[in-house]
Amino acid sequence: MSESVQLIPGDSLITATPQEGRELAIKMARLIIKVTQPDAEVRGRLRGVYAEDAAMLIAIGQTVATEFTTIAAANNYWR
Amino acid sequence: MSESVQLIPGDSLITATPQEGRELAIKMARLIIKVTQPDAEVRGRLRGVYAEDAAMLIAIGQTVATEFTTIAAANNYWR
Amino acid sequence: MSESVQLIPGDSLITATPQEGRELAIKMARLIIKVTQPDAEVRGRLRGVYAEDAAMLIAIGQTVATEFTTIAAANNYWR
Amino acid sequence: MSESVQLIPGDSLITATPQEGRELAIKMARLIIKVTQPDAEVRGRLRGVYAEDAAMLIAIGQTVATEFTTIAAANNYWR
Amino acid sequence: MSESVQLIPGDSLITATPQEGRELAIKMARLIIKVTQPDAEVRGRLRGVYAEDAAMLIAIGQTVATEFTTIAAANNYWR
Amino acid sequence: MSESVQLIPGDSLITATPQEGRELAIKMARLIIKVTQPDAEVRGRLRGVYAEDAAMLIAIGQTVATEFTTIAAANNYWR
Repeated sequence: MSESVQLIPGDSLITATPQEGRELAIKMARLIIKVTQPDAEVRGRLRGVYAEDAAMLIAIGQTVATEFTTIAAANNYWR
Repeated sequence: MSESVQLIPGDSLITATPQEGRELAIKMARLIIKVTQPDAEVRGRLRGVYAEDAAMLIAIGQTVATEFTTIAAANNYWR
Repeated sequence: MSESVQLIPGDSLITATPQEGRELAIKMARLIIKVTQPDAEVRGRLRGVYAEDAAMLIAIGQTVATEFTTIAAANNYWR
Repeated sequence: MSESVQLIPGDSLITATPQEGRELAIKMARLIIKVTQPDAEVRGRLRGVYAEDAAMLIAIGQTVATEFTTIAAANNYWR
Repeated sequence: MSESVQLIPGDSLITATPQEGRELAIKMARLIIKVTQPDAEVRGRLRGVYAEDAAMLIAIGQTVATEFTTIAAANNYWR
Repeated sequence: MSESVQLIPGDSLITATPQEGRELAIKMARLIIKVTQPDAEVRGRLRGVYAEDAAMLIAIGQTVATEFTTIAAANNYWR
């Protein structure tokens, strides 16, 4: 794994809206998978697995929820 | 996946009541699944799987609890 | 699922005591399962499954712990 | 399940020391299992299962860690 | 289980450095397993299981991460 | 396991950028696995397992997300 891969688009946790914060959470979660499995072909194959697996879809939701907790706090909840 | 999908209804974490906050947590959790598996037919089939599976129902509860932690803090716990 | 189902008894996170906060955490966790699987007969059957399964009982404990984190913060830890 | 079961010994999150806070976390996690599976004989049997299962022991550790997060914050980390 | 087992070395969450905080997180996680499975021989056997199992090693990482969240906050992040 | 292994590069949670914070989260998560399974050959073999397993890749994402929550708070979210 090369640590030089971009792990946070824009290198900032600050976003204009909650929607953008949510999109960032999804991207950050995906980039961890990308950096752990750099082979795009393998990732494509695994995508076919988790997209059809209820338990894995729920687990993805859990990961995004955790990432979002951090992003929301960083943005003071866009209050 | 298209990031243009609405991920937070109303694009705000602020709700009038805890009940509405809880409903938002459920919706946000579902929208992550929707954006990861955009095919409504597949999602409908998987719903039949997790709704009959005790372990998955518990896992859904865990995800909603995590989303709600963020929403409740955003609303200063509706104190 | 109908979002009109009551998801938080009393529609408040504030409780008089930690004990009541803990009871609220249990109820909130259950209500997510209820709203995801509205069929009482199916839930009754699944209860028989998770109540005899060590891994699922532990997972329920994890979910309640997460719900309680939010409730305890809302109540300023009943200090 | 009867909600009248004691869920937090002493009905308080405040403890004199971190050690006592840790013990409280363990007890709180156990009491959720007790209230979900009130049959002492079944719980005894399941204890034999999880005490010999590495994955379940790790999961118990995760639950206690989450409970402790709340208790430690309640006690201002015993600083 | 005897609650008199030492659960936090030094009975304090305060450490001099992040490194020591991390070591404390590992020890605290282990002590929960020890108190749940007091038989050293069984624990030794289970160690052989989880040390060769990728999923369990990841789960151990998750538990340590949660313990460390508490310890880091207690130490005001060693800022 | 030797506790003298370096668990946090630089022995600090403070980083210049979110990107570096994310890299630190990945490293910290890996170092827990390293300290739990010190045999590099075994770790290499297990890497081949989790890098091809969708559920494990998601679980790694969950662990990194939890580590990052702590690091982001330590850095006051790089605001």
